[in-house]
Amino acid sequence: MPRKFTYADAGVDRELRAKSKKALKVLKETYRFSRYGKVVSLPFGNVFPIGRNRYLDLVIEGVGTKVLVAQLAEKYDTIGIDGVAMAVNDVIRSGAMPLAVADNIHAHVSNPALVREWMKGVVKGAAEAECVVPSGEIGDVPELIKGLVEGRGFDMVFAAVGEVSGEKIISGKNIKPGDAIIGLRSSGIHSNGVSLARSILFKRWGGKYEPYYVPEGLEREVVHEVLEPTRIYVKPLLRVAEELKVKAAVHITGDAYLKFDRLTKFSEGIGFDFDNFKPQPIFELIQKTASELGRMIVDHEMFKTFNMGWGFAIIVDKANRDKAIDISEKTGVQTDQIGHVTDSEGIKILYKSRKIILK
Amino acid sequence: MPRKFTYADAGVDRELRAKSKKALKVLKETYRFSRYGKVVSLPFGNVFPIGRNRYLDLVIEGVGTKVLVAQLAEKYDTIGIDGVAMAVNDVIRSGAMPLAVADNIHAHVSNPALVREWMKGVVKGAAEAECVVPSGEIGDVPELIKGLVEGRGFDMVFAAVGEVSGEKIISGKNIKPGDAIIGLRSSGIHSNGVSLARSILFKRWGGKYEPYYVPEGLEREVVHEVLEPTRIYVKPLLRVAEELKVKAAVHITGDAYLKFDRLTKFSEGIGFDFDNFKPQPIFELIQKTASELGRMIVDHEMFKTFNMGWGFAIIVDKANRDKAIDISEKTGVQTDQIGHVTDSEGIKILYKSRKIILK
Repeated sequence: MPRKFTYADAGVDRELRAKSKKALKVLKETYRFSRYGKVVSLPFGNVFPIGRNRYLDLVIEGVGTKVLVAQLAEKYDTIGIDGVAMAVNDVIRSGAMPLAVADNIHAHVSNPALVREWMKGVVKGAAEAECVVPSGEIGDVPELIKGLVEGRGFDMVFAAVGEVSGEKIISGKNIKPGDAIIGLRSSGIHSNGVSLARSILFKRWGGKYEPYYVPEGLEREVVHEVLEPTRIYVKPLLRVAEELKVKAAVHITGDAYLKFDRLTKFSEGIGFDFDNFKPQPIFELIQKTASELGRMIVDHEMFKTFNMGWGFAIIVDKANRDKAIDISEKTGVQTDQIGHVTDSEGIKILYKSRKIILK
Repeated sequence: MPRKFTYADAGVDRELRAKSKKALKVLKETYRFSRYGKVVSLPFGNVFPIGRNRYLDLVIEGVGTKVLVAQLAEKYDTIGIDGVAMAVNDVIRSGAMPLAVADNIHAHVSNPALVREWMKGVVKGAAEAECVVPSGEIGDVPELIKGLVEGRGFDMVFAAVGEVSGEKIISGKNIKPGDAIIGLRSSGIHSNGVSLARSILFKRWGGKYEPYYVPEGLEREVVHEVLEPTRIYVKPLLRVAEELKVKAAVHITGDAYLKFDRLTKFSEGIGFDFDNFKPQPIFELIQKTASELGRMIVDHEMFKTFNMGWGFAIIVDKANRDKAIDISEKTGVQTDQIGHVTDSEGIKILYKSRKIILK
């Protein structure tokens, strides 16, 4: 039997990361500097007031090692979309409308041709999110950045700021058994789990395929499948939140479906059952290829690492289920109920007739 | 005669970087997404409205290779101050009051002990800037980051958002010959020119000294001198801007005194004369040591790379000179007139009785 292969084997230690995140709690000491009143702590991120009943949400996020996949493909015009997506999809979790995005690129060397390609993606992402990009920074720091190809290495970090009125804040409170969990279709693996995917899929990192090979089940080269830009959920989320009460909004990124556990800190006595997954072929390919390489990734691990087809989720009252799906679909994103809130604690997933206890 | 040594020799090509910055101009296409009216272009950064007569300034900045100096010193509790400083000192250039800062750290590995040290600096910086830190992100991306010591590598990027009312925006307009240029004392080399400084000062990077050596003229180990955190200018700038008309505010970072050239796009027919420099011993040490190593750094290059003792500058009407200095000094920052605006184009510096034509 092949030994189990986890995200830690691909270089990411989830437990150590959790400890580090705890060390970030000291940042709460800064809340006393809020100029217009109290910071509101939310399940994902926090918002601070800028006046009567008006709040800002500031987030900062990177695209992780997907930049290495862009280098492998030698295609740089979409990675900026991922950057915008990672930031604005985090901002909307509070219900905030993203206003502006700023990007910071640390590179081996300022290469104007490369910068132009990067900016194509940033502008495209900003257009989809309807955001201003008031500033972008490029820093030449060859001693800080590892690249796949010398001179082409880079790392991307994006900030976004959004605003939300008090009554529209998505608080994570009052989630009740029976509430519907609505999934918004992802465009593939997005920007999370990329390290694990790379180590399985690409020879360059110990995996199986050459980048331009088209494995069975995919309709294009594996490198382009992995590089597919992260979907931006600003429009569906904001339209739904405009018309309906959204109880929680989850950007399914690092830790994937484990993220729902965070909501139990804001609504007590609840758990989550998921039963509707039709992951894109890329996810099945990763799992199957891992097996072939003798590095089995159990389902449990897949759901802790990948979005498995749904890149964003919202929780609404059961009565609002159909309307939420309808509004979201009208923005062009495939949307469906993927589970429901239960009265028994834990996160359970029904997948291919198998029951997975995630937590 | 030793050959001239420039910043490009230390790995930073200023011309190529300028071309890359031009490629960022495409971001202006996103200005049409401004939700509450027109983006206002400023000499340094841009602000966008969030309502009647109210604007936000969003910036993102890194601390550059100063992270390598922290690794060399094995001292991690102040580099977070540099991160906050780089972001908030950029925000205040528009006259905006920083409200919040968010930090993103890309690391070899989440090391909770290290995170705790980093956060000490972030919290200290935020306290000085009176900013909330609503979120901080740590990403484990060992394949993206080069470190001095395996497992200790990291890169830091900080975002800050500030607000300013329309009439308080520092526009860079109406600068006139005779206006006073007021310098705010730096705390040393800050976070710019560090690559050049490292290559001269530390054996580790081809320079002269072991990190814990105390060279003549310094009062402490050279590594601690370089690691001294960047001063935060929020209080002096905002206090002065509260009481007086500030015509321009310049954060003296990359390109140093060349930055003033940017102001000629907003006020025509002006130039800048500087005549008051008493750089800290670290700057003289860099220049002297470079000479000893046969890599002469001419004065011209020094003033294009380093802050030379003044980390921030403001331009006010001559009549407001004394009051501006007085208000700034009361916040605890040594402040003095360092030059004045002229009616002849160019940037000229009088230093040690020598005249330097910077541009």
